[in-house]
Amino acid sequence: TLADAIFRHLDHGAAAGPSLAGRHALVTAGPTHEPIDPVRYLANRSSGRQGYAIAAALAARGARVTLVSGPVDLPPPPGIDVRRVETATQMLAACRAALPCDIAVCTAAVADWHVANPTDRKMKKAPGATAPVLTLAPNPDILAHLAAAGPARPALVVGFAAETHDLERYAAAKRVAKGCDWIVANDVRPETGIMGGAENEIVLISADGSERWPRLTKEAVAQRLAQRIAEYFSPDRSPA
Amino acid sequence: TLADAIFRHLDHGAAAGPSLAGRHALVTAGPTHEPIDPVRYLANRSSGRQGYAIAAALAARGARVTLVSGPVDLPPPPGIDVRRVETATQMLAACRAALPCDIAVCTAAVADWHVANPTDRKMKKAPGATAPVLTLAPNPDILAHLAAAGPARPALVVGFAAETHDLERYAAAKRVAKGCDWIVANDVRPETGIMGGAENEIVLISADGSERWPRLTKEAVAQRLAQRIAEYFSPDRSPA
Repeated sequence: TLADAIFRHLDHGAAAGPSLAGRHALVTAGPTHEPIDPVRYLANRSSGRQGYAIAAALAARGARVTLVSGPVDLPPPPGIDVRRVETATQMLAACRAALPCDIAVCTAAVADWHVANPTDRKMKKAPGATAPVLTLAPNPDILAHLAAAGPARPALVVGFAAETHDLERYAAAKRVAKGCDWIVANDVRPETGIMGGAENEIVLISADGSERWPRLTKEAVAQRLAQRIAEYFSPDRSPA
Repeated sequence: TLADAIFRHLDHGAAAGPSLAGRHALVTAGPTHEPIDPVRYLANRSSGRQGYAIAAALAARGARVTLVSGPVDLPPPPGIDVRRVETATQMLAACRAALPCDIAVCTAAVADWHVANPTDRKMKKAPGATAPVLTLAPNPDILAHLAAAGPARPALVVGFAAETHDLERYAAAKRVAKGCDWIVANDVRPETGIMGGAENEIVLISADGSERWPRLTKEAVAQRLAQRIAEYFSPDRSPA
């Protein structure tokens, strides 16, 4: 029946708890690829799954979502404005173009560096020649840009920290250094299976301290984070 | 009807012309990823589509196929033994383990270099520090290894050359330098749309000269190449 169809739609599409209707959320996801030459590039490992899930969870709470995505093999979530980019420089430009927003969630694994002198000709491996040296140059810091004080600063800026060692210490320092409100920290040592996997185990760090969530699917992490964000914007707001 | 089902199966699964039954074909496909640290790597652009299509086309002619694949987002072709690897060193080891074979088709975009000193700890971007320099070291040359004379040399070794400039000249020189029998050369300038795309436009180079094929789907290129390979192994063999 029509009633059943509507019920199923609501059941899948909407989330219990506070709404984000009327809010604009910017989510970055995936890696960036930094060209070396036309066939080679530097990359970060990132499936984009956590960021896409967060974009979908924010949309399910009624937010208008702009998803700025590096190269990933994921279908665009329905109802979300997806802007595809390749490099960190392109990602920053797409984020700036998406402002203003109320919420910025930066899950993308943005390359810290690009190759200083990419060539438009494939590098040749000459017999007997020495291997080339790649000189790197720093990329723009997208999270720090979005978190910088100013009239366009989103009300809530959430960064991600993927670390292999000293997770909480690096993540807490990153929150302060970048000027963002929350950091979602996760341990990406290969043995955790988190990178590219279906699950995530995170520590949410705010000015109020840190809390460790149990190991959850990336979708469940996204829903919990979206709920926290909606609570932050609700009139009877509770601290993160 | 059952007859219809069998007919459809034959129509899809088998190819007209000479058979490769009893032959073992080794196909490499996809890029390799060379680690920089646990979250960063060097990569080549390669969707793996041409190699997967060739593996399927050789299997459709009755060959037993071992497909050694770098990281790609393609489903394993049915009935083909797929060995997944990440780095060039792993790809060479998997190819050696697959010998002996009658046919080797090396479509993989193997990285020419790996990072000389990858770290098992994520590199940190220190404030104010200079950008790191990546020192590269040469990777093993899988095509040259397979083509090297010796009792385990496949009867037919086919290499691929992806170039942005001077395609035929580089490809013909590569055929001689590597000691392989045929080179399938294609132009991967970004404006051709071949890299990651559905079509390919190739030049087949052998000791007998070169021939330019029209622009075809990657599946059609695969079927034509598989037919040429089967003709090479058929008693009344015609030159490439």
